[in-house]
Amino acid sequence: MTAGPVAHWVRFLDQGEIRFGTLERDQQRVRVCEGDMFAGALPTERTVALADVQLLAPVEPGKIIALWNNFHALGARLGLPDPAEPLYLVKASTSTLAPGGVIRKPRCDGKVVFEGELAIVIGKRASGVSESRALDHVLGYTCANDVTLADILHRDPTFPQWARAKGFDTFCPFGPAVATGIDPATLAVKTILNGELRQDYPISDMRFSAAQLVSLISQDMTLEPGDLILCGTSVGVGSMKPGSTIEVEIAGVGRLRNRFE
Amino acid sequence: MTAGPVAHWVRFLDQGEIRFGTLERDQQRVRVCEGDMFAGALPTERTVALADVQLLAPVEPGKIIALWNNFHALGARLGLPDPAEPLYLVKASTSTLAPGGVIRKPRCDGKVVFEGELAIVIGKRASGVSESRALDHVLGYTCANDVTLADILHRDPTFPQWARAKGFDTFCPFGPAVATGIDPATLAVKTILNGELRQDYPISDMRFSAAQLVSLISQDMTLEPGDLILCGTSVGVGSMKPGSTIEVEIAGVGRLRNRFE
Repeated sequence: MTAGPVAHWVRFLDQGEIRFGTLERDQQRVRVCEGDMFAGALPTERTVALADVQLLAPVEPGKIIALWNNFHALGARLGLPDPAEPLYLVKASTSTLAPGGVIRKPRCDGKVVFEGELAIVIGKRASGVSESRALDHVLGYTCANDVTLADILHRDPTFPQWARAKGFDTFCPFGPAVATGIDPATLAVKTILNGELRQDYPISDMRFSAAQLVSLISQDMTLEPGDLILCGTSVGVGSMKPGSTIEVEIAGVGRLRNRFE
Repeated sequence: MTAGPVAHWVRFLDQGEIRFGTLERDQQRVRVCEGDMFAGALPTERTVALADVQLLAPVEPGKIIALWNNFHALGARLGLPDPAEPLYLVKASTSTLAPGGVIRKPRCDGKVVFEGELAIVIGKRASGVSESRALDHVLGYTCANDVTLADILHRDPTFPQWARAKGFDTFCPFGPAVATGIDPATLAVKTILNGELRQDYPISDMRFSAAQLVSLISQDMTLEPGDLILCGTSVGVGSMKPGSTIEVEIAGVGRLRNRFE
């Protein structure tokens, strides 16, 4: 649970201007806000129809941390031991993609894989925070697709190319909204490829919880507002053919929809 | 060789204001500039003594790419095959450290290793650029120390922790200046630990040249102004004890000096 009331923050282009706001209860309109999403945002009198604006990625992460082997079910399936500490890589900050944006096939060939995930959005700078205070530094949660060019991962036998395989432009779609005031441990991640359910796993199966991840990673590096922690995926990942539509849905958070070309 | 005349760009705090400028010929004073370091910087009438200002990292990288096994000599020493493609990881953008800043021992224990390196500083957005045009997208070159907590790298047998081992706060000192108008392939990287020369290797020994790295990595991900590519290190890396002074020097580029505590 993060502090504050339930809200869904979005960022969007409105007549050429970048604005942000919160979804109204009907999920059809956005209450335009002013100020800083991370500190003292104020609602205005104005609302706009969601259909009339172009959604952007809800935040601009300075860094994107992606967990590996963080779900018991996937670890068991792959015969991996339970990790003693969070195992993570860093995705390039230029890999972000807006909701509705097109995931592009990289210039180098290979199988492109979807991984539906919960992402933690940092709200307040965190350095060396305790597990019990960690969620004070979280703005909220969003849906993410940790897209991977699987074939290059182990192409060089001496060096696994995690950062490259997951760092191509458009390989980190996330959104559509950052949901605040919710407890993700009660929710499930669903991934839908061309209308077919491919992943449906409980977030409570995480090896390290959201509070543990924020606390433990903040011992290593300072987490800044807007930074993302992709919590890792579970069973059911698979590859996408060009022309596919891929959706990541977490009830109460939102549904992220992208095409792959 | 990058376009334009030889210059050394620095960024600094001057009476509480962040400014940038170029080193004067005597290397003792800075010509204060206005505008944008990456596009149309203009020299002003004003100079300040280098001794009177506090140097900052010369740019603020959105992402930091770090090469592995990019020098023939180190690869041969370690018995590694020549890589067929650049092998890289991404260091957290929060790992940057100013010249003169203190490299801090991480909260988790282990041997902290220096790696003196040449770093490429991107000047102009690059996406899918050819090798022959790659250097048009480079602002210049600087000295970097790709600091690593070596002991955790292979602590988990299933996942090498490159991003973490190299991503701690303060683990990417670079500077003091970005040198333009030079050809790094004629230069050498020297690393000096407590006054003792520990690394001294020719940049011409790189497996992938600066132009090749910018071109090849830009096929994967868009490079933005201020992004850094750390070109990898060669023989002579070693660990540092708290209290050490570590310097990375490239003649014609500068000397980066940091303490480790």
